[in-house]
Amino acid sequence: MLLYYIDLIGVAVFAVSGALAAGRKRLDLLGVVVIATVTAIGGGTTRDVLLDRHPIFWVADPSYLAVITAAALLTVAYVRWRPPPDKSLRVADALGLAFFVISGARIAQQLELPAISVVVMGVLTGVVGGVIRDVLTTEIPMILRHGELYATAAITGAALFLGLAELGVSSPVPALVGMAVIVALRLAAIVWGLRLPVFSLDRK
Amino acid sequence: MLLYYIDLIGVAVFAVSGALAAGRKRLDLLGVVVIATVTAIGGGTTRDVLLDRHPIFWVADPSYLAVITAAALLTVAYVRWRPPPDKSLRVADALGLAFFVISGARIAQQLELPAISVVVMGVLTGVVGGVIRDVLTTEIPMILRHGELYATAAITGAALFLGLAELGVSSPVPALVGMAVIVALRLAAIVWGLRLPVFSLDRK
Amino acid sequence: MLLYYIDLIGVAVFAVSGALAAGRKRLDLLGVVVIATVTAIGGGTTRDVLLDRHPIFWVADPSYLAVITAAALLTVAYVRWRPPPDKSLRVADALGLAFFVISGARIAQQLELPAISVVVMGVLTGVVGGVIRDVLTTEIPMILRHGELYATAAITGAALFLGLAELGVSSPVPALVGMAVIVALRLAAIVWGLRLPVFSLDRK
Repeated sequence: MLLYYIDLIGVAVFAVSGALAAGRKRLDLLGVVVIATVTAIGGGTTRDVLLDRHPIFWVADPSYLAVITAAALLTVAYVRWRPPPDKSLRVADALGLAFFVISGARIAQQLELPAISVVVMGVLTGVVGGVIRDVLTTEIPMILRHGELYATAAITGAALFLGLAELGVSSPVPALVGMAVIVALRLAAIVWGLRLPVFSLDRK
Repeated sequence: MLLYYIDLIGVAVFAVSGALAAGRKRLDLLGVVVIATVTAIGGGTTRDVLLDRHPIFWVADPSYLAVITAAALLTVAYVRWRPPPDKSLRVADALGLAFFVISGARIAQQLELPAISVVVMGVLTGVVGGVIRDVLTTEIPMILRHGELYATAAITGAALFLGLAELGVSSPVPALVGMAVIVALRLAAIVWGLRLPVFSLDRK
Repeated sequence: MLLYYIDLIGVAVFAVSGALAAGRKRLDLLGVVVIATVTAIGGGTTRDVLLDRHPIFWVADPSYLAVITAAALLTVAYVRWRPPPDKSLRVADALGLAFFVISGARIAQQLELPAISVVVMGVLTGVVGGVIRDVLTTEIPMILRHGELYATAAITGAALFLGLAELGVSSPVPALVGMAVIVALRLAAIVWGLRLPVFSLDRK
């Protein structure tokens, strides 16, 4: 049940981020809906395909696609009414990242996969939607942009979730802590400009 | 049977579009064949992976890859003989889009998936090949280009097919009507410049 | 057994190429690890998904992800100690290409797929990781760069492997010959600038 709502909210916020990104590219209405949809379903679809979970989460249950379409259309309506704040795309993306990293990690953990696979599955589930959005809208993927703490937030949140769950902390505490840490790290980067040292071929 | 020929013609026209796109990038011959192949198999492969249909359509039946290779090589030969018309890439893409949207929607409809999933599966099956082609050849994805009516054509065609089929119109009429509408809308955009209003963050 | 080691070495060298590519983009440490990981697992994951092989090679066996993480971190450490040679990314990529083309072709051949499917499966397994790396780091995909002999090397190596195996040459000779030819062709392009005629719309 928890997972169901995590996924529903996750697709909604990713759909908002997709609609906002598409809005910057002057698409017509159905173009916006398509970009929002692939952004929203990308991560969970990757998770289900990699783990051979069929039917894929959105294929047999129309709620997800209905929520995505509604979120995309409401975003369009809102934006026509008043311009969204500058950072709204990245904040929507941060929420979607948090929901989907934990969703992917939780399913992998319930399958008793090795710890490193749980973390990687969480990270992939969280980042793929945003990568698809950024590639389709020909933006530099957020995970690559300097100082976004994107990978750091995803890996830290997934590892923390897994550690707490393995220590026997009862559900849904590990999931909530994991999501909170991801959102906190991303907002720290977006709002306060928190940075990590970079690895660069140019440095000695 | 109908689906088999739809897919065969679909891969052929998408292979032509891939070969034309690769030709603009000064690739050697086998590079052209690889781009044509991934363009042609991308959409149907996505459809089969998402619906857990194995073996994937081209894996066990060599006809598809043979048709793709032949279409790519014939395109190379033709283009060396005389330059293709300006819009040939987009026209080949429009035909491929029509065939694959209906192929994806039809399979999803036969599986009795929810209506919104039928439409999304059709759209994904139709657009993925062209997106792969455009990303690989570092062009702006057609679905993003201003005024191509790409998403509109795909969604309208898939919905029309589904509506007619659900109303009991006998096969292959719904498929033919759906394909015709997709081609007509895309050609209207390509040839006559038909446009829809755009959604943009810059507008009030 | 042979395949297991081919895959282990393949992910290691692709991880090195991913870490080097990420290093050019000034990422933080975990960003480098994520790019290295998706580069390293991309091809084999595509192979396993297309052939419905579950669990995907890295999901249940932690060795692969451990090797990838170690390779990425060692690359970071080495590069901070001394700058890598100019061509190291392309050489690491050439080795990864060779290992994964043969890995994909060998599995497809053992499944007794049609010859053309064996070659395409080998090529896809070999090229997908590098394409993901190049798209994520917003570089022109190597397979598209003028004069890299990328597709030529992959197709020639896969076809040679298949031909020798079908002729009854005993394992692991076909695999070794296939890999050697791929590496030789790629190095010939990288080091000595060997070129093939290109196909271009601009030529008569």
